[in-house]
Parts: sequence; structure tokens; C-alpha cells
Amino acid sequence: MEIKPDPSTTPATATAGMIPQPGERNYPEDRWGRRAWELLEKIRRRAPLVQCITNFVSMDLMANVLLASGASPAMLHSLQEISDFTPGVDALCINIGTLSEDWLPSMRAAAAAAAEAGRPWVLDPVAVSASDYRMEACIGLLELRPAAIRGNASEILGLVSSSRFRENKGADSSHESSDAVEAAKSLAQSTGAVVAVSGAIDYITDGRMVVAVRNGAAMLQKITATGCAVTALIAAFIAVEPSGALEAVACALSVFGIAAELGVEAARGPASLRMHLIDSLYGLNEDALLSRVSIFSHA
Amino acid sequence: MEIKPDPSTTPATATAGMIPQPGERNYPEDRWGRRAWELLEKIRRRAPLVQCITNFVSMDLMANVLLASGASPAMLHSLQEISDFTPGVDALCINIGTLSEDWLPSMRAAAAAAAEAGRPWVLDPVAVSASDYRMEACIGLLELRPAAIRGNASEILGLVSSSRFRENKGADSSHESSDAVEAAKSLAQSTGAVVAVSGAIDYITDGRMVVAVRNGAAMLQKITATGCAVTALIAAFIAVEPSGALEAVACALSVFGIAAELGVEAARGPASLRMHLIDSLYGLNEDALLSRVSIFSHA
Amino acid sequence: MEIKPDPSTTPATATAGMIPQPGERNYPEDRWGRRAWELLEKIRRRAPLVQCITNFVSMDLMANVLLASGASPAMLHSLQEISDFTPGVDALCINIGTLSEDWLPSMRAAAAAAAEAGRPWVLDPVAVSASDYRMEACIGLLELRPAAIRGNASEILGLVSSSRFRENKGADSSHESSDAVEAAKSLAQSTGAVVAVSGAIDYITDGRMVVAVRNGAAMLQKITATGCAVTALIAAFIAVEPSGALEAVACALSVFGIAAELGVEAARGPASLRMHLIDSLYGLNEDALLSRVSIFSHA
Repeated sequence: MEIKPDPSTTPATATAGMIPQPGERNYPEDRWGRRAWELLEKIRRRAPLVQCITNFVSMDLMANVLLASGASPAMLHSLQEISDFTPGVDALCINIGTLSEDWLPSMRAAAAAAAEAGRPWVLDPVAVSASDYRMEACIGLLELRPAAIRGNASEILGLVSSSRFRENKGADSSHESSDAVEAAKSLAQSTGAVVAVSGAIDYITDGRMVVAVRNGAAMLQKITATGCAVTALIAAFIAVEPSGALEAVACALSVFGIAAELGVEAARGPASLRMHLIDSLYGLNEDALLSRVSIFSHA
Repeated sequence: MEIKPDPSTTPATATAGMIPQPGERNYPEDRWGRRAWELLEKIRRRAPLVQCITNFVSMDLMANVLLASGASPAMLHSLQEISDFTPGVDALCINIGTLSEDWLPSMRAAAAAAAEAGRPWVLDPVAVSASDYRMEACIGLLELRPAAIRGNASEILGLVSSSRFRENKGADSSHESSDAVEAAKSLAQSTGAVVAVSGAIDYITDGRMVVAVRNGAAMLQKITATGCAVTALIAAFIAVEPSGALEAVACALSVFGIAAELGVEAARGPASLRMHLIDSLYGLNEDALLSRVSIFSHA
Repeated sequence: MEIKPDPSTTPATATAGMIPQPGERNYPEDRWGRRAWELLEKIRRRAPLVQCITNFVSMDLMANVLLASGASPAMLHSLQEISDFTPGVDALCINIGTLSEDWLPSMRAAAAAAAEAGRPWVLDPVAVSASDYRMEACIGLLELRPAAIRGNASEILGLVSSSRFRENKGADSSHESSDAVEAAKSLAQSTGAVVAVSGAIDYITDGRMVVAVRNGAAMLQKITATGCAVTALIAAFIAVEPSGALEAVACALSVFGIAAELGVEAARGPASLRMHLIDSLYGLNEDALLSRVSIFSHA
């Protein structure tokens, strides 16, 4: 299912990449809420198997976020195992955070195996501009047709310009997410992937439409691997809705953001937020989700 | 010390592998409690050095669970270090969760070094049916005579049939623990190891006797690496009671389960349970242990 | 800036390496507090990029402690990326906890690249006496001129004697920190690094002066990777004060210890302490820091 812009509520002046205003909503908010709830319920019911080939820092959080959502994580990266295992997974998440020569062949083989078996896979291009090696690895992975790509603004801008920044900011972004919306559209068009730019507002695009998500908490930036974890959650949402990737990605970002909002209410700092976020995702009920979902789409 | 069945309390109809009934108790519950407490106290007093060659996901939880129990963890996996280090450890824990070509030689060398030095080692055959590579690696490790093996029902059944399931469920089990009791007995007989099948009820067998543990919490399945962590705790218990592996394994599973039960009372979801479980294990006192231990043995 | 002994408050009998008495203070306590606060504020303002090539166990805690302090962590270890990335970092932290043949060349290349680019790097010689391989690796790294080295007493003693202990205690220390003060001075003199010995009291020396820090909590020893994490925090402090490494190291140890003290007040065991420590570091304010800082220097 795809989101169709509703001309009656989309002003002619709406511009992709700008912060959507209430008048721009073309997908009624309550419909987004029902959609997000429907997909979360599907994950809880089906427990999709999500293989993660990810960085060492994020493995614990990623697995626990997937479990809390209802999905079944599998951290399995050995080249010898890909042909046996990957064709049977429901989705694959590849994250280059601690990329190395040892792991890259597995990432490539797994992405290819997933693509061949018709399983969606998602890419998290962590700190893609940190080195030429990383950039080339990412560009190679893009050719294997990810269903979705999620990064922060610096990562998406870097990937599109295919050049390294010399700012050296590690995995943090030095741009606002809105700076990267046009780059995201371009990346989506050239790769066929749905592209998400995370930030204070998340932007998701299939190259034509742009959807914005305003859920989340600023303190997430003070917890390592939350970006990695939400990319894995995106894989779980796409696993249960492979033909509606744009919606699945938006709903995943919103659900994670809502769990963070609920977590912040109980948190005293980033470490307790990390705990409460997972607890909140696990216990998230329909009322809390519907009352908090903040997804907007505009042409 | 081995557990001897007590004919006076063991009905003639008791069948290994069935859920034991109160009437089947042949080892008075309070004796099990005292035994579990005695072994935990030994760990706290002696701080046995437990080397772990484990998967990337579990390292943090495993090390923290060992520390909370009083043991001293050592995450050291380099092939170059095995000959210097492993002969001096008190126990070794090998876990194949994120198996790779790089690590398997270290696992083999460490298991061999431990066996040669007379140090007990335990095997966690995580997701053994996920690939032929993993299955063959595990079968090779079994020849190095682990003192104990702990897995879920799917893993134990897979290991015994030496064949891969095509269900692709990652590290989760798709069987009840009771389904695997006969397989566990067979595995124990063929390997000489004590075999534990984790589940809602844990079953532990040396190939002749079967002991059941009913401590634990269902929500543990929503926390990654809790199975890995309890296998490491088993290594710590065997380290202080190498000649009584059946009892040591049962007591380890019960103590971990009790910590989970105490944790659940304070938890609001899986992430807070993870925290409270560790805190509870660290602070576990004799009264709480004795009042909660639920270990049953039957012939 | 260096700490100059103040003759008026330093008794002639003061001996480096002994627990400093109140009368030995030569750097007024409130001045230490102001200095620690100043450096923490610098980290929060500048968000120094700290590259960590560390062990698998510590990555999550280390990244989260750096983030909570205000620094920007980058867990990047691939040999292919060092030449692009490391010259641009503000500091580098190398930790040999799960050393392997694959990672050692990256550690060497990164240390060399940092040294060449004039970026400070710090070494954590985890369990250096566990094997000859580890000892030789560490000795090789020392030649690449770390700005600081932090270890427990057993590690510093092992490094200085360049010989393996046969006690096999993993990463735990079997010595009091005061046992290693002379070894630390000798190591500082031979390497040019500031050397810190962690323990109930931390000792920091540049080979001439010794500073002692009495902040911290005993329960930290029951949480894995807290030593690794404080070494990373040391890197962040040196990043913002590269010309005053002795002070930066002392302040980092004090700030981490204060966060632990505040954490203990809310903790019910090691896992909740781990959480509250990070939250406390994140929220640490000037008053709490000034009222708790306990740094003493003596000639």
C-alpha cells in the first residue's frame, strides 16, 4: 500500500523537505496511528526473523529493541552461514558502524542472498563519510538494492555526494535533517530504496513523496546505537509490510519515537531513558500510540 | 556429589522427561535450597575465574552476571593466548552465537586446553541448526568433552539429530523443553556431559537421572543473551563443584531463575528486568533463595 | 598547565606513593574542583571526537559514558580507515581487553597516526599479564608514546616488570593501588606518559609528582568495563587539555568517581549503579562536583 497525496488538503505551496504544517496533512493523523498500530500488532503476532549484520556497539540494544517490539533477532554474520540462513529470514539489517575487511564480504553476500530470495533488507550507512573505504563499501552495498536506507543528515548527504566530509564527527550529524531532504529524494530515486533521514524531525521519502515524523526525544542522541536500533526496527516493520515500505519506515520511526517520549517521562538521564524506552516499546498499547503518533505526509 | 534417587518418595510410575509432580521429589526441596546456597557462597568466596569465548551480543550481560554472582569473568579469545591463559582458569564457557572462521580455532584450542588441564568447560550451542557450518562446528566441539551443555529445546533436538531445521527461528526455540528430555538424555550419554534444556521448566540430565527446575520468568525470553548468561553462570557453579556437575547445573539454573523472579517483581518491562535480575543476583540472600528454590529430581 | 608542589603545605616527610594526608595538600581542594568543572564544561562545549579501539565487552558502556560526558565517541577500528580518520580525532583510546591478531595492527597504526598528528592517545593495558602475546603487544604499543596509561595495580606492576604473573586473575587486580605507585612512576619516566593506577584510591603520576583521587565506589568492581570506560573518559579530558595531562587524568578519575558516588546513592546493585552512574555523569552540576571532588597532590 502506498500513500497517495490528497490534493484537497495539500496546499499547492507545500514543498517537500520543509517542516509540514497542519494544513499539509494528506493522510489523516488517526489513519497513521491506526496503521502504525496495525503493523506493530503484526510484528507481535508473527515475530518476524530479522537478521542483523551490525556493529559491535549496537548488538545488545538492537537485539533488545527487536525483542521488545515482538520481532525475533538473529545476529549471524559468518560468510559460511549466509547461504543456509539468509534466504529464510523475514528481513535483513546491515549496519557498517564497525566495518572491517572481515565483515564486508558477509554483508555483501547477505544483501545479495536477501535480494535474490525476495526478502527486504535495510542499510544503515553509519558515519559513511569517515573514510574512503567506508564510502566505497556503502556504494557497493547500494547496488544490491536495499528496500530502505536510514541515516542522519550528514550520512545521507555524504552518501549522495559520494564524498567524504572532512569534519570528522564520527557517527553524529552536523546537519539538520531538513538539510538532507532533497538528497534523500535523489538517493531514493537512484537506488529504488525508501530513504529516511533521522533528526529532530525524521523525513522519509520514496523519491516522490515525503513523510515527516515528529516523535522522539532529543536525549536519544546521548545514547549510543539508538539510530542503529531504529534501523533494525524499520527492518521488522518492513518484514511484515514489504509492499508498503514508505509507510512501514514512517511507522517504525514513529513507534520508536513514541517509546522514547514515554521513556523520557520516567528517565533521569540517558541510561535510564535507554531502559525505559525498551520497556515502553514492549508495553506500548493502542491508546498511547494513537494519542502520540505524529506522522505527516506532503507531496 | 551425585544425586541419588530416594525410592521412598519416587513413585514407580515416574517417567523421566515428564513434568515432575510434588510426589516425585526425591531430593527434599530444602536440601536443594541448602545446596544451591552452599554453591553460591563458594562462588562468592572463591571468585572462580571463568573464561568466556562467547558471542558479541552476550558479552556485557555475561560478564555482569558472572560478576554479580561473585565469579571473575575473563573475555579472552585470541588463539595466541589460549596456551598461556586457559590452563589456569577455573572453568571455560564456549558459546557459538556469532560463530566465525576466526573464532572457531580458538574455541577448539581452549576446549582442548581446558580438558587437558582438567578444567571443566561448558558449551552453549546457540542456534545450532541455523547452518551446516554451525552444526559441524558444534559436533566438533562435542568431541572435546564438555562438562555441560545448555540449550533450548530446539538446540538440543537439533544437536542430537545432527540436522538443520528449516524453520529458521534464530536463537529462539520452537519446542517446549519437555519435548527434548529424551534427546538430552541421549546427548548426555553419548558425550558424557550433563545436558540442560532450558524452557518454562528446565530439565537437567546426566543421561540417567533427570532434574527439573521451575524457577524463572517468561519475560526472560524478551531479553537478549539471558540464555548465554545462564550458561556462563553454570560454568561458575561447575568451577566450584567440578565433581558434581548435575547438581551444579541445576543450582545455577535455579539461582538465575530466582534472580529473575525477584527481578520481575520490580520490573516494568524487559530492560528493567535485565537490571533488576543482576541486582537481585548480586544481593541474593539465603532466605530468598531457600523460600524460592524449586528443583525436583526423578529417576 | 602543570601542578606545582606548594612547599608551604607539603611536609618535608611527604612520600610519593603513600596515601596523602590532609596536611599534604599542595593544590587546594577547591582549586581541583574548579579545574575538574572547567574541563568537564570544555568537554560539554566542544564535544571532542574520541576514537576508541577497544574490547568487545566495553563498547556499549564506553560509548555511553563518553556521550554522557559530552564527548563524541567513534568506535572505528578498521586498518583501512585509520589513515583517513585518526588524524582528525581529538583523542584516541586503545584498550587491549579482547586483543587479537586482527586488531593489533589497527591499534598500532592508529597510535602511530595519532602520535604523528599530535593527537593524544591513551592506553588501557587490560590483563596485560594474561599472556606473553598480550605483554608483547603492550610493550610494542608503549613505544608509540601514549599520553596516558591507566590500569589497576596488577596491570601497572605487570607492565613494569614486563613479566606475566601466574596468578591468572583475568582483568581484576590482586594488588592494592598503593602497591604500584613506584612502578607507575617508573613507567611514567620510561614512557613519558602520565600513568594512573586505579583502586580504592587512584594514583596519577607523571614520573615526578603523584596525585591521589579518593572518589569512587567499591561496587564499581562488580560492573564490567568500568575501568575501560574511565580510560575513555580520560581520553576525553586530555582531548580538551592536551598540555596538562596529569591534571586532566586526575580530573577524569574524580569526575567518574563522583558520578559513581551519586549513582550508589540511588542504586540497589551493580546493574542499577551502572545506569545511575551514567545518568549522574550526564547531569553532574557544579555544586555536586565541587562538594565531592577529592584530589590530593604531593611531591
